[in-house]
Amino acid sequence: MRRSATTATALLLGAATLASAQTYQRLGACPKLGCVFPPDQTEFLAGQLFDIRLEVHAPVNGSEATNGVPDEKFTFCIQNGKGPCEDANKFFKAKEPTLEKWTFQYYEDLFARDAKTPTVVNVAAKAYRALSLSQPGTYAAKLTYNGGGQTVANWVVRKPATHRKAKNVLFFIGDGMTQAMITAARLIAHKSINGKYQSLMQMDQMDNLGHQMTHSIDSFITDSANSATALYTGKKSTVNALGVYVDSSKTPFDDPKVETIAELFRRRIGGALGIVSTAYIADATPAGLCSHTRDRGQYASIVTEYLYNATFLNSTFAWPTSCQGPDVIFGGGAEQFIAGKGSPNGTDFYKAFQAQGYNVIHNNTELQAAGTKDKTLGIFSVSNMAKWIDRNVMRDNLKGMKDSPTGDGTDATDQPGLKEMTIKAIDILQARQKKGKGEGWFMMSEAASIDKMMHVLDYDRALGDLLELDDTIRASIDHLKKIGEYKNTLIVVTADHGHGFDVFGGADTKYLAAQSTDRKKRDAVGVYANSGLSGYTTSPGSLPNNQTGPNFPVQWNPRYTYAAGFGANPDHRETYAINTKGPRVPATAGTDGTYGVNPADNQAGFTVEGTLPTDESQGVHSLTDVSVFANGPGAEAFKGVYNSIDIFFKIADALALGRTDGH
Amino acid sequence: MRRSATTATALLLGAATLASAQTYQRLGACPKLGCVFPPDQTEFLAGQLFDIRLEVHAPVNGSEATNGVPDEKFTFCIQNGKGPCEDANKFFKAKEPTLEKWTFQYYEDLFARDAKTPTVVNVAAKAYRALSLSQPGTYAAKLTYNGGGQTVANWVVRKPATHRKAKNVLFFIGDGMTQAMITAARLIAHKSINGKYQSLMQMDQMDNLGHQMTHSIDSFITDSANSATALYTGKKSTVNALGVYVDSSKTPFDDPKVETIAELFRRRIGGALGIVSTAYIADATPAGLCSHTRDRGQYASIVTEYLYNATFLNSTFAWPTSCQGPDVIFGGGAEQFIAGKGSPNGTDFYKAFQAQGYNVIHNNTELQAAGTKDKTLGIFSVSNMAKWIDRNVMRDNLKGMKDSPTGDGTDATDQPGLKEMTIKAIDILQARQKKGKGEGWFMMSEAASIDKMMHVLDYDRALGDLLELDDTIRASIDHLKKIGEYKNTLIVVTADHGHGFDVFGGADTKYLAAQSTDRKKRDAVGVYANSGLSGYTTSPGSLPNNQTGPNFPVQWNPRYTYAAGFGANPDHRETYAINTKGPRVPATAGTDGTYGVNPADNQAGFTVEGTLPTDESQGVHSLTDVSVFANGPGAEAFKGVYNSIDIFFKIADALALGRTDGH
Repeated sequence: MRRSATTATALLLGAATLASAQTYQRLGACPKLGCVFPPDQTEFLAGQLFDIRLEVHAPVNGSEATNGVPDEKFTFCIQNGKGPCEDANKFFKAKEPTLEKWTFQYYEDLFARDAKTPTVVNVAAKAYRALSLSQPGTYAAKLTYNGGGQTVANWVVRKPATHRKAKNVLFFIGDGMTQAMITAARLIAHKSINGKYQSLMQMDQMDNLGHQMTHSIDSFITDSANSATALYTGKKSTVNALGVYVDSSKTPFDDPKVETIAELFRRRIGGALGIVSTAYIADATPAGLCSHTRDRGQYASIVTEYLYNATFLNSTFAWPTSCQGPDVIFGGGAEQFIAGKGSPNGTDFYKAFQAQGYNVIHNNTELQAAGTKDKTLGIFSVSNMAKWIDRNVMRDNLKGMKDSPTGDGTDATDQPGLKEMTIKAIDILQARQKKGKGEGWFMMSEAASIDKMMHVLDYDRALGDLLELDDTIRASIDHLKKIGEYKNTLIVVTADHGHGFDVFGGADTKYLAAQSTDRKKRDAVGVYANSGLSGYTTSPGSLPNNQTGPNFPVQWNPRYTYAAGFGANPDHRETYAINTKGPRVPATAGTDGTYGVNPADNQAGFTVEGTLPTDESQGVHSLTDVSVFANGPGAEAFKGVYNSIDIFFKIADALALGRTDGH
Repeated sequence: MRRSATTATALLLGAATLASAQTYQRLGACPKLGCVFPPDQTEFLAGQLFDIRLEVHAPVNGSEATNGVPDEKFTFCIQNGKGPCEDANKFFKAKEPTLEKWTFQYYEDLFARDAKTPTVVNVAAKAYRALSLSQPGTYAAKLTYNGGGQTVANWVVRKPATHRKAKNVLFFIGDGMTQAMITAARLIAHKSINGKYQSLMQMDQMDNLGHQMTHSIDSFITDSANSATALYTGKKSTVNALGVYVDSSKTPFDDPKVETIAELFRRRIGGALGIVSTAYIADATPAGLCSHTRDRGQYASIVTEYLYNATFLNSTFAWPTSCQGPDVIFGGGAEQFIAGKGSPNGTDFYKAFQAQGYNVIHNNTELQAAGTKDKTLGIFSVSNMAKWIDRNVMRDNLKGMKDSPTGDGTDATDQPGLKEMTIKAIDILQARQKKGKGEGWFMMSEAASIDKMMHVLDYDRALGDLLELDDTIRASIDHLKKIGEYKNTLIVVTADHGHGFDVFGGADTKYLAAQSTDRKKRDAVGVYANSGLSGYTTSPGSLPNNQTGPNFPVQWNPRYTYAAGFGANPDHRETYAINTKGPRVPATAGTDGTYGVNPADNQAGFTVEGTLPTDESQGVHSLTDVSVFANGPGAEAFKGVYNSIDIFFKIADALALGRTDGH
C-alpha cells in the first residue's frame, strides 16, 4: 500500500551535537550543514555507477540558524586509502558541475508543526553524474565549507567475486512478510498431529537460513521503496526513494542515483531480465529494479524507465544505464498503460511497448497461450491484482470491480496467480537468454499483497497470498528441475520489511458473534491451552481435499479461528473471522477528517481503539528482522545475520557483477 | 509469569470425526475414546525412560455420550516394525498394572461453560512406569477397547549418535524472546550510522542460525512449562506440564513421565549439572530440567525434585532417575526455601540442601567470594530477581521490596546478574566435573524476565534483560576461551515461545505528555520516515559512555523513544516512555472482577482498549517461530527450520546420550 510522500523532512543532528533522534529531520543522512551523498558508511560494488550530490545548508532560523547565506565556494576532494585528497574533478576526470541554489523548509518537531513555525534553509549545491570506483579499498570523500568546516563520507569499494557461480537468479520477495506470518501460514495450511507437522512450507525446507535488518538510512522503519533500493543497489536510503539518495531539492528526479542489480546485470552480462508482481507494476518493489526517483508516486515516469534510461526523462543529467526493456513484465496496474491521466503523457503505453517489440497480454488464457520467443508485457488488472482467496475461494468478489486491464470497464475475472506468472516468465527468460557470455537470467517475483492485506488488517488474505508465494517457490523449483536449470539457479526468498503481526490465540467466532457487549465478545478469545488447534486443516469427515491446490487451508472460515493482531492499529473492530466480501477497509475518515472505525466493517465485532496517529487509516510497517531462505549456487552466503544491503552484494557476487577494470 | 492451571480440558476430536479445533478439549492428544500416552507421533531417544498411560473414556453426556461405563477389559500391545503386536506386559517384561478408575468433567465449548452444563466422563486406566526402548526403529502401540475400537500410537526411536562431539553444553534460554525483540534490542543498544550498525549483538555473530516451532501438542500457543518439556525431553506436551504428558486424573503427580536431558546427562555420563535463572528457581524453565508434574504450580515438590527423584515424593510409582542434586542452582525464589507455607512440608529447605553438602549463598558478594569445590545453592531474592534496569540504572527501585532471600524482611539490594551467576557457575562446574568418561558439564542459563516484563507490557525492562542475556553470552564465550573450554563447549541460544511484540515507530514523549486528549496523544507516534533514529545510543555531547557496560543503551529515557506493542492486550494506557518506578502493572481488577486500565499506570498516556478476555490482566504468548543461535561442537545441526523437540535430540546427539545397549 503506497505511503504518501512526506514532504517535510526534519532535523537529525545539527552542527552542534543534538542528543536525540527526532521525528522530523532537516535532511536524512546529513548530520552537519554540509552534505555528501553517497554519505558516510556507503559501500559499493566495484564499478557500480553512482551520482554524487553535494549540498551546503544555511538555516535562516531555528536551532541551527546561520546568516542564511550558504557557502558557494565549498570544495570537494577524494582520498583513496592513505593517499592525498585529490580534487574530485581531477580524481573522476569530470568537469566542474554547475552551481545550483534552492530553498527548502521543514519543522523541527511536532510543536513547531502545530505552531506552523517552519525552519527555512537556503542551499548551495552541485552534482556529479554517473561516476564509478573500480578499485577495491577505502575512500574518504571530503566536503569543505564555511571556512574550514568539513563533512567526511567514508566509502568502501568491496572486493568483488571474480568467479560467476550462478547462471540464473530467481529472487522472491514476500512484501512485508515476517517469520510470525510464515508460522501462522504453516499453522493454517499444514496438518499437524500431536504437535508434529505432517508437511512443511517450502520455505521451511530451503538449504540456507538468514536474517536481514530492514531499517532505513534515516529512520528505523522502512517502506517498500526504500528497502527495494537497499536490496537492489546495496545502499540504504529514505522512505519513498527508488534507486536514489534523497537530496533537499524540490524535483523528485535530480536526486543522486545508484545503479541497480538489474541495470548491472543488463550492462555487465546482457542477460535476460524478468519482473513479476501481484501489485500494480509501477509499485515500489518492482519499480526499484529500474527506477530512479525520490518519489515512488511518479508512476508514469516509473513505467517509462522500464523502457528507457533516466536520461530519456530528464536530459539535464546523464544516466547511461537502464533495464533496457525487461524481457518479461507481469503484474497489475493497467492505469499506467491505458491512455489517460495515469499513463506517460496521457498516451496509450501498451502501444509504446508494442512498438519496442513486446507481445502484450491481458489474462491467464493469453498467458498460457503466449509463446516464449518475444519480450512479453502482461498487465492483468487495473491497480493491484486480485488476492489468492478471492481468485480461488470466493470468486464472486472478482465481480463488479470493473478492473479489466483493457480499460473496457469489464471485470478482470481471468487473472493468473503468482505461480502462473512466474512459471511462464521462467520459460520466456529461458528461451530469450543469449548464448555464451551473456547466458542466464535474473527474475524478481513479488507476492505484493502479503503487505497490502496486512495494511488493512485482513490477515486471512495476507496469509493466503503468503501461501501462494510458498506454492510458487515449490512449483518453480519443480519446474527448474524439469528444464534442467535448478542446479544453475540461485533462489533467494526474503521480505523487505515487517508488520507487527502475530497470532496470540484462538477465537470461537460463533460465541463472539452471539455476545452483546464488547467485553463479553473478547471472552471468545482463547489463549495458551485454550487456543486449541488449527481448524483450517480439517473439514467435516475429510482429510485435506486439496481442491485449491496442495498446501492451502481446506476451509477458511472454521468456527474456531486464529486470533491475531498488531500493536499498531487505527481504530477498528475485530471478529477474527474472514471477510467473505473481499478485502477489509478497517477505518474510514469521520467528519473531522481523522480516521475511526469503519461503520461497515466487522459489524459483529468488538471495538479496539487504535495506537496510531488518527490520520493513519491502516496498519504500518514494523522493525523486526526478516528471514532469508536460499538454495542453489552462491546460496551459502545467505546464512546468518546481516544488513539488507548485503543481499545486493551476495547476489552480485553470485553473478560476478563487480568489475575492477574500469569498464 | 505463571499461568494458573486450566482445570477444564476440552474436546478435540471425538470418536465421530468433528470438524473444528475447539477452545475446550476432552483431553489433549487423545482424539478418540481410548487414549495412549506417549501418543501418536512420539519420538524417543534410544534408551530414554518413559511411562505409559492408557485410558478408556466413557462420556455420560455430551456430543460423545456412551452408556457411561468405561471398558475395563482393554488390551494393549506393541508392534516393532512389521513384526507381530506383542502384549505389552511381555514386550516390556512388566507386570500387569493395577486398574484405576476415576471421573472427570469438562465443558465442550464456551456456551456450555456459560450454561454450566459440563460433560462428565468415566475413566478406566492403567499405567506402566519407567520403561524404555533401546532399538532404533518404528513401533505401533495399540490400545484395543469397546469390543474392537482401537487407538494406535506410532512411535519412532531415532538412531542415536555414537560419537560424543561436545564435552560441555551451555544452553541459554531467553524466555519469550522473539526475533522482533532481538531487533529492537539491537536498535536501542548498538550505534548505527547512516543505516550501518557499528557494533552487533553477540547473537548476530553466532555461527549457526535456526528457527524452531514452539506450538504445544494440543494447542497452538504454549506456555513455558510445556515448551521446557519439549526442549528438555523431545516430547510435545500440554500447557502447565513439566516432564509429563497430561492424563485426565486429578492428581498432578501421576501423569506419565519422560526422562529429561538433565536426568539423561546424570544417568548416562555422570557429568556436572548447573541451573541458572533470573526467575524464582521453581519457575517452569528451570523446573523442567528435573521435575515431573502436570501442574507447574507445585513449587514445593519442584524444589524437592532438585534433590531427590520423583519416587521420593510419590512412592506409588517408580521413577529411578533424577537430577541427583545439581552442582549449581542459582536464582530467585527464596519462598520455597525459607521455612513457611511455600517450602516443602513447611521446613527450612536451605538446611535440606546444606545437609546434602551444598554451600548456600545469598548475594553477589558471597557469589564472588564462593569457592568452586562444593555444590552451591545461590538464592538471591524472594520471587523473581530484580531486572537489569533496576539493578543497574534505577537502583532506587530495589528499595522497599523486603525480598531478602534470608527472609529477614530487608531488601535484596546486592543481587548478581545473569552474567555474574553464569560465569561463576561455569567455574564451579569446571572444577567439579569428573575425570575420564564422566567429564564435562551441562548448564541451562535463563533470562527469565524478558518474558515476565513482556507480560506486563514493560518493553524497556524486557529489552534490558535481553541485552543482559546477550552480554552474558558474550562474556561466557570470552570466559570459556580464557579457561580453554570454548572449543569443547556447545553453546545454544534460543527461546521457548514468543510474545507478539514489534516496534512500529517512534514517539515524541514530550509532545505526547503535552496533549490533552487520547486522539491527540496518538499524534506523537511517528511511523515510517517519521520514526526517526534511535535516541538510546546518543547522549548530549558524547559517544556511548559504557557506564553500564558495553552494548547497553547510554540513556533509557530519551525524548524520542521507540513505539511498540502487541495485538494481544488487556485494557491499558500507553506513553511509550520507560516506567522509572519499577515494572509496570498495566491492568487491575475492577469491582466486577474483570480487568481494566490500572488507574495508577501511565497516567499521562492514552487508553488502548484490549483484545483479550477481560479476566486476563497481562499480555499473552504468541505463535511465531523463535530463533536459535549455536556455536561449537555439534552446533552445525542447529541450522535451518525444525520443531522445538528437535533441540533435545540435537543436544543429546552432541553428547551421545542415546544408548542401544539397553542400559
